[in-house]
Amino acid sequence: MRRFLIATCLLLAGCATAPEPAPLPLAAAPRVTSAYQFEFGSGEAGALQMSAFHALIAYAKDKAAHRPENSVVVAPGSPMVNAKFLPCGDKPLAVAFDIDETLVLNLGFEARAAAGEPYEQARWDRWEKAGGSDVVAMPGAQHALDALKDLKITPIFISNRSASNAAATEAMLDKLELGPAKHFDNLWLLGDVAPGSGKDARRWKVAQRYCVIAMVGDQLGDFSDRFNDPMPVPQRRQLAVHSSAGGLWGKGWFVLPNPVYGTALKGGIDDIFPADKRWNDAGARQ
Amino acid sequence: MRRFLIATCLLLAGCATAPEPAPLPLAAAPRVTSAYQFEFGSGEAGALQMSAFHALIAYAKDKAAHRPENSVVVAPGSPMVNAKFLPCGDKPLAVAFDIDETLVLNLGFEARAAAGEPYEQARWDRWEKAGGSDVVAMPGAQHALDALKDLKITPIFISNRSASNAAATEAMLDKLELGPAKHFDNLWLLGDVAPGSGKDARRWKVAQRYCVIAMVGDQLGDFSDRFNDPMPVPQRRQLAVHSSAGGLWGKGWFVLPNPVYGTALKGGIDDIFPADKRWNDAGARQ
Repeated sequence: MRRFLIATCLLLAGCATAPEPAPLPLAAAPRVTSAYQFEFGSGEAGALQMSAFHALIAYAKDKAAHRPENSVVVAPGSPMVNAKFLPCGDKPLAVAFDIDETLVLNLGFEARAAAGEPYEQARWDRWEKAGGSDVVAMPGAQHALDALKDLKITPIFISNRSASNAAATEAMLDKLELGPAKHFDNLWLLGDVAPGSGKDARRWKVAQRYCVIAMVGDQLGDFSDRFNDPMPVPQRRQLAVHSSAGGLWGKGWFVLPNPVYGTALKGGIDDIFPADKRWNDAGARQ
Repeated sequence: MRRFLIATCLLLAGCATAPEPAPLPLAAAPRVTSAYQFEFGSGEAGALQMSAFHALIAYAKDKAAHRPENSVVVAPGSPMVNAKFLPCGDKPLAVAFDIDETLVLNLGFEARAAAGEPYEQARWDRWEKAGGSDVVAMPGAQHALDALKDLKITPIFISNRSASNAAATEAMLDKLELGPAKHFDNLWLLGDVAPGSGKDARRWKVAQRYCVIAMVGDQLGDFSDRFNDPMPVPQRRQLAVHSSAGGLWGKGWFVLPNPVYGTALKGGIDDIFPADKRWNDAGARQ
């Protein structure tokens, strides 16, 4: 790494006097994997991202005009099949958002990961503290939050970012014009209500005060902790598609693509491809 | 490979007499890349897939009730910025679908690719001929096609599968209950109207007879050939998000995720991550 730093100095103006930057680990000229190309570089992902926010806006307009009886928050103890949802009463309307790779693209952090830097919790913590200078708002996100404001629907942010970095996260959302976010008011971070990364306890807390008409996230755990129960990969996919969840996608639960990190990335060949859908390709020997 | 086949025979009933299968190239016990895990194994992708079809159904119901003046087919010669669209007149309503990884998940073929078998055109041709036994309908697709039927909206299939395999493709769509598809009627394949893989000429042909209210695909080329004009990766993403296209995602143009193959998978670090959004991570040296 030292050698690479010195070589870089020949190219960069001000290198001799500026604080020495921690360079991107690009010495090996890595080929970016398809997941990064898709998520951060492609028009296709941009299209999916905007689709989610457009669908949210249309859905929120409809719910603002026709109040639902129930929220889209799965009730405590409910299974996902024939799920029960917390009632709305006459509470004000809200939408619950995840933050990372949902409202915000973490370009600065992910460029280093794409270049081969392995994940470290301590670095992610520095990234949270670094705030909003190397991030961008997700395509469509500002437009959706503006639309919710016009509809008098409150945005709630539920993230597993650290509570100790709450001020930096609030500032980042402000800077991206996605705020205001206020910790313990409409911003709920890791451990704020219960220990652990599950978000159900925070959703239930929010649902005491609001009628949550929609949730938006890039991980199934942004919708219900039931998806993070231990289960085989094919069963989890079936649970997402064929349970009560199946009817909610694009109709109360709005999902953003993320093939780069998270709970979607599990399984080997036998988990991902059903045994009865293998192709023998007899023609290969002709 | 021979050695692997013999070892497999110890495990599989009927191996001695059955036609020798071309095995999955699994001898090296490959780790499946995140793109395959996401697309074919995850509940997250299932959720995105269902979202697209749910959004399509809602949109089609609205357009069946309120006929649009214009189709969503970009007019010949129109740029994507302030795009012009072909008029509907009083033509019957239709929706144009791509097939592969849009209406159909090619599990049998992609299991082999995920296991490391490199792409070959001849194998893909055998796969087209093999038809519908090792594929499944995309989650949500049958439901959407049924809904269109109820609305008297015609599905049109525009695919770059080979015209010489049209009968097998028709049979596959029938078997998956996604048809009926009839070549040169509502099924348009590679080269049917003009040479090359561009789909504009086929869209314009379809728009002579139908008011195309929606298009559905996993590649930006399923919506306009303009996205396949030579241009830098960041410009293509901007074109998808900020041109007239930006307003169509989820509102006439419906996109399915595909981080596994296709036009989304381009670019190196410098194409994908803007230079002004790099993170120096000064804390790494503290």
